[in-house]
Amino acid sequence: MQRILATELAAHPYEQVQVAGWVHRVRRLKSVTFLIVRDAAGLAQVVITDRAVAAPLTEESVVTVTGTVTPNEQAPGGIELTGPEIHTQSAVDVPLPFELHRPTLTAGLPVQLDHAALALRHPVRRAALRIAAAATAGFRAALEAQRFVEVHTPKIVESATESGADVFRLDYFGRAAYLAQSPQFYKQMMVGVLERVYEVGPVFRAENSDTARHLTQYTSLDAEMGFIADHRTVMAVLTGTVAGMFGEITARTGVPTPRVPAEIPAVHFTEALRIAGAPADEPDLAPAHERALGAWARREHGSELVFVTGYPMRKRPFYTHPDPADPAYSNGFDLIFRGLEIVTGGQRLHRHADYVAALRAAGEPLAAHRGYLDAFRYGMPPHGGWAIGLERLVAKLTGAANVREVTAFPRDPHRIAP
Amino acid sequence: MQRILATELAAHPYEQVQVAGWVHRVRRLKSVTFLIVRDAAGLAQVVITDRAVAAPLTEESVVTVTGTVTPNEQAPGGIELTGPEIHTQSAVDVPLPFELHRPTLTAGLPVQLDHAALALRHPVRRAALRIAAAATAGFRAALEAQRFVEVHTPKIVESATESGADVFRLDYFGRAAYLAQSPQFYKQMMVGVLERVYEVGPVFRAENSDTARHLTQYTSLDAEMGFIADHRTVMAVLTGTVAGMFGEITARTGVPTPRVPAEIPAVHFTEALRIAGAPADEPDLAPAHERALGAWARREHGSELVFVTGYPMRKRPFYTHPDPADPAYSNGFDLIFRGLEIVTGGQRLHRHADYVAALRAAGEPLAAHRGYLDAFRYGMPPHGGWAIGLERLVAKLTGAANVREVTAFPRDPHRIAP
Repeated sequence: MQRILATELAAHPYEQVQVAGWVHRVRRLKSVTFLIVRDAAGLAQVVITDRAVAAPLTEESVVTVTGTVTPNEQAPGGIELTGPEIHTQSAVDVPLPFELHRPTLTAGLPVQLDHAALALRHPVRRAALRIAAAATAGFRAALEAQRFVEVHTPKIVESATESGADVFRLDYFGRAAYLAQSPQFYKQMMVGVLERVYEVGPVFRAENSDTARHLTQYTSLDAEMGFIADHRTVMAVLTGTVAGMFGEITARTGVPTPRVPAEIPAVHFTEALRIAGAPADEPDLAPAHERALGAWARREHGSELVFVTGYPMRKRPFYTHPDPADPAYSNGFDLIFRGLEIVTGGQRLHRHADYVAALRAAGEPLAAHRGYLDAFRYGMPPHGGWAIGLERLVAKLTGAANVREVTAFPRDPHRIAP
Repeated sequence: MQRILATELAAHPYEQVQVAGWVHRVRRLKSVTFLIVRDAAGLAQVVITDRAVAAPLTEESVVTVTGTVTPNEQAPGGIELTGPEIHTQSAVDVPLPFELHRPTLTAGLPVQLDHAALALRHPVRRAALRIAAAATAGFRAALEAQRFVEVHTPKIVESATESGADVFRLDYFGRAAYLAQSPQFYKQMMVGVLERVYEVGPVFRAENSDTARHLTQYTSLDAEMGFIADHRTVMAVLTGTVAGMFGEITARTGVPTPRVPAEIPAVHFTEALRIAGAPADEPDLAPAHERALGAWARREHGSELVFVTGYPMRKRPFYTHPDPADPAYSNGFDLIFRGLEIVTGGQRLHRHADYVAALRAAGEPLAAHRGYLDAFRYGMPPHGGWAIGLERLVAKLTGAANVREVTAFPRDPHRIAP
């Protein structure tokens, strides 16, 4: 018999059907046992009247259940399976480290992460993974509609370039190599090839900071585009992309997402400091400042999103394009969502001579950047792009307090397993 | 003025328009200069009659050209821009290491790879990248239509598990960690969460083999699904997925792709050895055997694709499910495309006791697999999946002799730059 999903039961009243999944819960009452089967789509209630059938059932065992679809107003969803024949495909014969059928996981986060293969089965954890999948689907759809092309770039790189310290070093056939902190250089080079490119992939940060918003590997949603006027062209495309992502999340998962204004409010860095009540000589925004800006945007503009533009050049990487009107500030921006920076982007330098000057000023050896500099030596248009941190976005959307709650198998300085 | 693409010119006869792109070629004739501008979409011919305007133009400089769209039967595509006003956005003032306007790149592959940012601009190289992008889009679309969910799994792992030798070791805050050779363990664990999952991502192999078909980083198109009958369920879903990929490639790029039979011919490993003329005690298929099988499938079945099933258990990884009818052979398969293995897949073990026995038999410490074993300890259905090597697929489709010709920035034992 062809298996159907829990959510399809209602379409088959009084029919004999088969469902398959995990034993989500077993409720043993005096004269009847309720078996809740969890599959990819949802939950199905099975009514067992034979105690011998119910006896061996253990939570998380995998079962197939053949039975009759029986409407019952008191059953969850108004449907249950009666007269079941139950076949166990994999029997669980050990106690679970925590229960999956409560509304939330009651085990502490470290215990959940130690048993990720089990904890991720909880409907709340699983829902976050579906939101992440919808977000990347929306990202791709929005960009492909604007002729961005997907690329795959190297994660093993020759030199620890973008910022010396926070890179993982590996042994590459006896020589040193590094894990890429971002596809930045490669996506820029690809602008010279395809004009508009994007990549969804892992990036690696060897930051020894154990916070609720940092991971040593995370999923970066990168885009880069040529022939822009300045960073505002990039911000406009990003705005449409975020709207597309939110739309796809709601369409696929039913999870409500905030309205994305046609023009997201944008404040210059100097103004952002003032709003956040920070000293005027601060070189960057601290997390508390970002939270203050988020509150301000919600209060003043009814927006969950706010751009900060014009970050000081001294705090941005060497490839950042300065603001032509005030070269101490940049054409770089961050996008803050509910008080947390989830996107960094901006216009990049595009002339070879500017790169040579910027690298020299940064004390970086030109030779280490030879392949990257090729792109600019052989002609590049004005361009810019961004990187969205997927886990941060999903954490903010779901209200998770820690990015580890929305990441399948998070990596941090103290965790590389499972 | 809003820029339009080279391919949009024909829709604007006699209008004043602007194109932008790279100086693909400058042909200086006696009384006229032909400037060919290359953009993301195609080539545009510009007619320059003023020698002073033409004089400073150098190949690969980035220009914007405003001019009148003028039909001319002798122009490529029947259209050219006349009366141009040319603005150079980035001037190239060095000679190119090779020309981009010939039908093929005449520089040797190492020179091309040294100057990847330039070589990838060649229309042939660029086309391969677009084919790869179409392949991944087709892969995702085919799987999402069958309720597979995208996942992102760790690339940094605790132990060099799947096969001890060929892994890259990295320094993870003072302890050893490794780059993941595949998402195998993680996608299996995720079957317990979402039933059907896929991932498009980088995998890393520290094989010191400098062949035309090996890379140390490549893009793996992985899928894994639960509640299968056996490996044939997986083969059927894979067949539909490959058909979807080929269809998307042709739809997006116009590149012809071979017909995918509703049922791809499949031969058992023992039969494959016989067809390839190999000794009956060979434990695996060598590249020459795969080529012989490819020729056989084309000749006997008119198919560019052929499955080989039932590889000997001793050559497959520990998680491979044996053939219940003959446990010396496996429920594993390879898919051979035009004589090259492009997919490996199969049914996996799903019972905890089977994993314990298999790991013990392989001499692997159970403790190193604790998180992975959790999935099976807490209930897993029969499941299986596959991994497609993207670069191999694209190389075979385009007729490239070397996977490095279809990879943006290939990595091999001797190359980690640019």
